[in-house]
Amino acid sequence: MSLVVTGSIGIDTIETPTGKADEVVGGSSIYFTAAASFFGPVKLVGAVGEDFPQAFVDLFHHWDVDTTGLERRMGSKTFRWHGKYHTNMNDRDTLGIELGVLAEKLPPVPDSYRDAKHIFLATTTPQNQMSLLDSFPNRKLTVADTIELYIQTDRDALLELYSKIDGVIINDSEAKLLTGEANTIVAADRIIEMGPKFVVVKKGEHGAFIRHRAQGRDGFAAFPAYPARSVVDPTGAGDSFAAGMMGYLAASVEGTPTLEDLRRAMAYGTVVASYTIEDFSVGRLKTLTRKEIDTRFTEFVGMVGL
Amino acid sequence: MSLVVTGSIGIDTIETPTGKADEVVGGSSIYFTAAASFFGPVKLVGAVGEDFPQAFVDLFHHWDVDTTGLERRMGSKTFRWHGKYHTNMNDRDTLGIELGVLAEKLPPVPDSYRDAKHIFLATTTPQNQMSLLDSFPNRKLTVADTIELYIQTDRDALLELYSKIDGVIINDSEAKLLTGEANTIVAADRIIEMGPKFVVVKKGEHGAFIRHRAQGRDGFAAFPAYPARSVVDPTGAGDSFAAGMMGYLAASVEGTPTLEDLRRAMAYGTVVASYTIEDFSVGRLKTLTRKEIDTRFTEFVGMVGL
Repeated sequence: MSLVVTGSIGIDTIETPTGKADEVVGGSSIYFTAAASFFGPVKLVGAVGEDFPQAFVDLFHHWDVDTTGLERRMGSKTFRWHGKYHTNMNDRDTLGIELGVLAEKLPPVPDSYRDAKHIFLATTTPQNQMSLLDSFPNRKLTVADTIELYIQTDRDALLELYSKIDGVIINDSEAKLLTGEANTIVAADRIIEMGPKFVVVKKGEHGAFIRHRAQGRDGFAAFPAYPARSVVDPTGAGDSFAAGMMGYLAASVEGTPTLEDLRRAMAYGTVVASYTIEDFSVGRLKTLTRKEIDTRFTEFVGMVGL
Repeated sequence: MSLVVTGSIGIDTIETPTGKADEVVGGSSIYFTAAASFFGPVKLVGAVGEDFPQAFVDLFHHWDVDTTGLERRMGSKTFRWHGKYHTNMNDRDTLGIELGVLAEKLPPVPDSYRDAKHIFLATTTPQNQMSLLDSFPNRKLTVADTIELYIQTDRDALLELYSKIDGVIINDSEAKLLTGEANTIVAADRIIEMGPKFVVVKKGEHGAFIRHRAQGRDGFAAFPAYPARSVVDPTGAGDSFAAGMMGYLAASVEGTPTLEDLRRAMAYGTVVASYTIEDFSVGRLKTLTRKEIDTRFTEFVGMVGL
């Protein structure tokens, strides 16, 4: 398994109806690497500022994440995000955001990463996502996530990226914003026309679906979310979902994944995300075990299978 | 198969982002009987006013619905509803509602109906729903739907009804309103505590889930909706969903349904509802065939199965 990720690494302040977490570790990369580590080794590319606590760097090693490609940049500031969730836990407002080091170039990709076959471009600027592509001559599966901000500010860069990668992960409101379509299924059709072989549309508590095109055949699959009775903090659910998907694919699927492979991968993603939201920040991922993932996977398959 | 339904029978005016339908046939009973008729015979109990067009009565016979229990009441007015859907097609505003004959007592249940084993109490006043129970001494499975209006105006009657029946079908916002719980899974738990053996929570374009309790064991199953690319009019989707469920159960399941039976029934409900929303009022149900239902059922099972 050779899974490389870039994305944001940051300091979050999170308010939810159940409480508040001040200046905790955040960003798409920490959720992704932590969650994917349950499937096999993960390598990180990214930068943090001078102000990033060493304790947060050490956290990556809790999950054996390879941080050879992580650079602490003196004179730069770490990415910061302050968000507040609505009562429904599905919508949120961004109260503050500072891109900091995210607006700068990525550090060089270490030579020890270059044979990676699975690349995940977690949420960060489309420029940084794109810059990584050429560093991996043997890549077999490249998938990208994004957020509303970059659809609004860097639409052209995003469209160029989508024409060069295999898969897109995006949430439902972002898919509508990107395509101008009010119907999420039609929005997914439009994204497939932009180039990728598949698009996974995440719908938070309502699950996810995938549109897939292979050998000229159209495919579709859909899932509910795992029925969570207690949601403490939804932050990182999407990144963890992507991590479960990519982690499973990198560990278990040689070559181009079929719709069946992707469906199984999405079920793992759903399960991993269902744990992440049980605590603030990466709290739950710190205690999570592979056995818990496998137990809930079996339970979830039983719930959705016909 | 012996499936009896009561519910509303009305005249609707419907506005959606795609158009408007003036004074078309509506009410939960017409959608339910039409959709359930694809699985076997259906018997209707209900009343309409003097102003109900004969052409609408004739429509019931298009689907071979037994209307022995349908009374046209001189001097009374037919139930009328005027609704307008939001752009997302999931939310709607009621612009006008006149209960008319719905606020009066139901006509007597014909003797030829009395051996029915499957009873569906489609959306109408809880008093009328409750009044039907004693007429069916051999009933094996009684299930009720409702709407926000009756949760607000007749909560106690609804709770009494729920303590006496086998299953509840309700949508997510209604389940939250009824229980005061913000989490739909927890809301479903609370409804199970009110007495029924199962509760199906409908989530419109996001599918449905079921909480089930049998022999002290908790069960759960969840489905996405069928991926509809074009929604013309969502009115009656919930009634059609219930009809596919109850129609399948009445035709194919003897005795108390297991979670597996209910899951299959929900898949039929999902498929039937996906056709109803393709046209205004019962337009699509007029041309629908059982073969179309079976074809889409196979397709849907392929989409959700793991």
